[in-house]
Amino acid sequence: MIGSEGTLGIVTAAWVKMIPAPEAALPLAALYPDTGSGCAAIEAVFASGVIPAAIEYLDQGSIEATRGAFPVDLPGDARFMVIVDADGSADEAAHVHKELTEVLTEDALLVYAPTATKEIGALWRWRDGASIAVTAQRGGKVSEDIVIPVDRLQEGIEGTIEIGRRHDLPACSWGHAGDGNLHSTFMIDLDDPAELERAEHAAEDLFALAVELGGSVSGEHGIGMVKNGQIAAQWAPAAVAMHEAIKRTFDPKDLLNPGKKLAGRVRE
Amino acid sequence: MIGSEGTLGIVTAAWVKMIPAPEAALPLAALYPDTGSGCAAIEAVFASGVIPAAIEYLDQGSIEATRGAFPVDLPGDARFMVIVDADGSADEAAHVHKELTEVLTEDALLVYAPTATKEIGALWRWRDGASIAVTAQRGGKVSEDIVIPVDRLQEGIEGTIEIGRRHDLPACSWGHAGDGNLHSTFMIDLDDPAELERAEHAAEDLFALAVELGGSVSGEHGIGMVKNGQIAAQWAPAAVAMHEAIKRTFDPKDLLNPGKKLAGRVRE
Repeated sequence: MIGSEGTLGIVTAAWVKMIPAPEAALPLAALYPDTGSGCAAIEAVFASGVIPAAIEYLDQGSIEATRGAFPVDLPGDARFMVIVDADGSADEAAHVHKELTEVLTEDALLVYAPTATKEIGALWRWRDGASIAVTAQRGGKVSEDIVIPVDRLQEGIEGTIEIGRRHDLPACSWGHAGDGNLHSTFMIDLDDPAELERAEHAAEDLFALAVELGGSVSGEHGIGMVKNGQIAAQWAPAAVAMHEAIKRTFDPKDLLNPGKKLAGRVRE
Repeated sequence: MIGSEGTLGIVTAAWVKMIPAPEAALPLAALYPDTGSGCAAIEAVFASGVIPAAIEYLDQGSIEATRGAFPVDLPGDARFMVIVDADGSADEAAHVHKELTEVLTEDALLVYAPTATKEIGALWRWRDGASIAVTAQRGGKVSEDIVIPVDRLQEGIEGTIEIGRRHDLPACSWGHAGDGNLHSTFMIDLDDPAELERAEHAAEDLFALAVELGGSVSGEHGIGMVKNGQIAAQWAPAAVAMHEAIKRTFDPKDLLNPGKKLAGRVRE
């Protein structure tokens, strides 16, 4: 039901499974000199045997856009940030926190590990502001959400910058590294229609990169209307035909969220 | 793909997500004087805020069939057993174990809490033998797997016994209480065709009970061939028609696991 984006049915009733809030949640922010060492640290987290509640990243451009608001001074040569969250019972969070500190520290320029509730809140508020801070760099942005295998993360992050360069646009990305979910962003001047057009071409290249890396054109934000047509770029014709047949099976009269998640693009 | 039981496609490649084995796993087996107090203990586990890796139960008949092989002497008036498993890092498992001990002890006749690896292994081996021990009671059994909402567990367990009584068959159940998954069993003499026939009628009543309680005719074992036709008993005609339309969409030539998970029953 969630993956279909409302195109195959409507929810008429739901049971909610409640999961207890963790007793404690202790984040760690680690800074690295480049994308390669940062991505290696993320792989080391996966290999460590402990499971953080979140693995986030910010690349160089995202750090530059948000550096001034970070709770402490960041090293000048910091070009990649990994944020992880250790949660569970107080004992468990402390145990995971200790393991993650060890894993992330090895090649880090700095590890920031707030423990006071107020400082932890400040770190996540800073993280929540990343998208707005990136927008503020040039007044506008075209930001796309893609997902790729976690072991291709570095290629996705560096590929985003390279695509921006090809279309003469500054680019950056941040996102949910643990899921391979990138918010790849091209920063534009909204008053310049040529830049917006170049950014749209850049986005097409980005989707092609996601598919090439074994990923998908949509991570957590779905196809909706904006990505209508991208399914056909990603899937074989037989899979697209199946996608459309399923829609007709569930919704022959096209009543359910019409015009969304279409295999073919609709231009107004 | 799993829920379709192979009727909608075949797996051609898979990525395997590895989850670290827990450092420690500490089971607890708690005995209660009746189904009501045992089910109340299970609800108390849910309400406790800690999450065990397993919540199993055995009812009176299952306990009687396996009592002799249990690692320690069980109280004579024990008529319901709850087994939970506390796992995680050593600290976390100890923490969850302590909380669960507190929750389960309140109304228990006995709480058996092995901590040595050998004793823990013996408990789970005993649990694995439950199905065979129940079969051994009368030489045969008709055992069906249903699933019901966890808050209807007592009704499902007592209803199984009542259905057996109606069809003049001794009955019992055990299963995965945390998922509301019952292995409801009617014990039969395999040399008596009349008993087998009565057990099949009892199974039909059992499926009706599962649906009445808001559950499903299949928990973890699927529809397969044995439960062909049960979908139509459980679902509205429109849902059954949709089920068949989806099968035709994915597999118009009926090549994928033919004859399984059919809405209508097939009699040889």
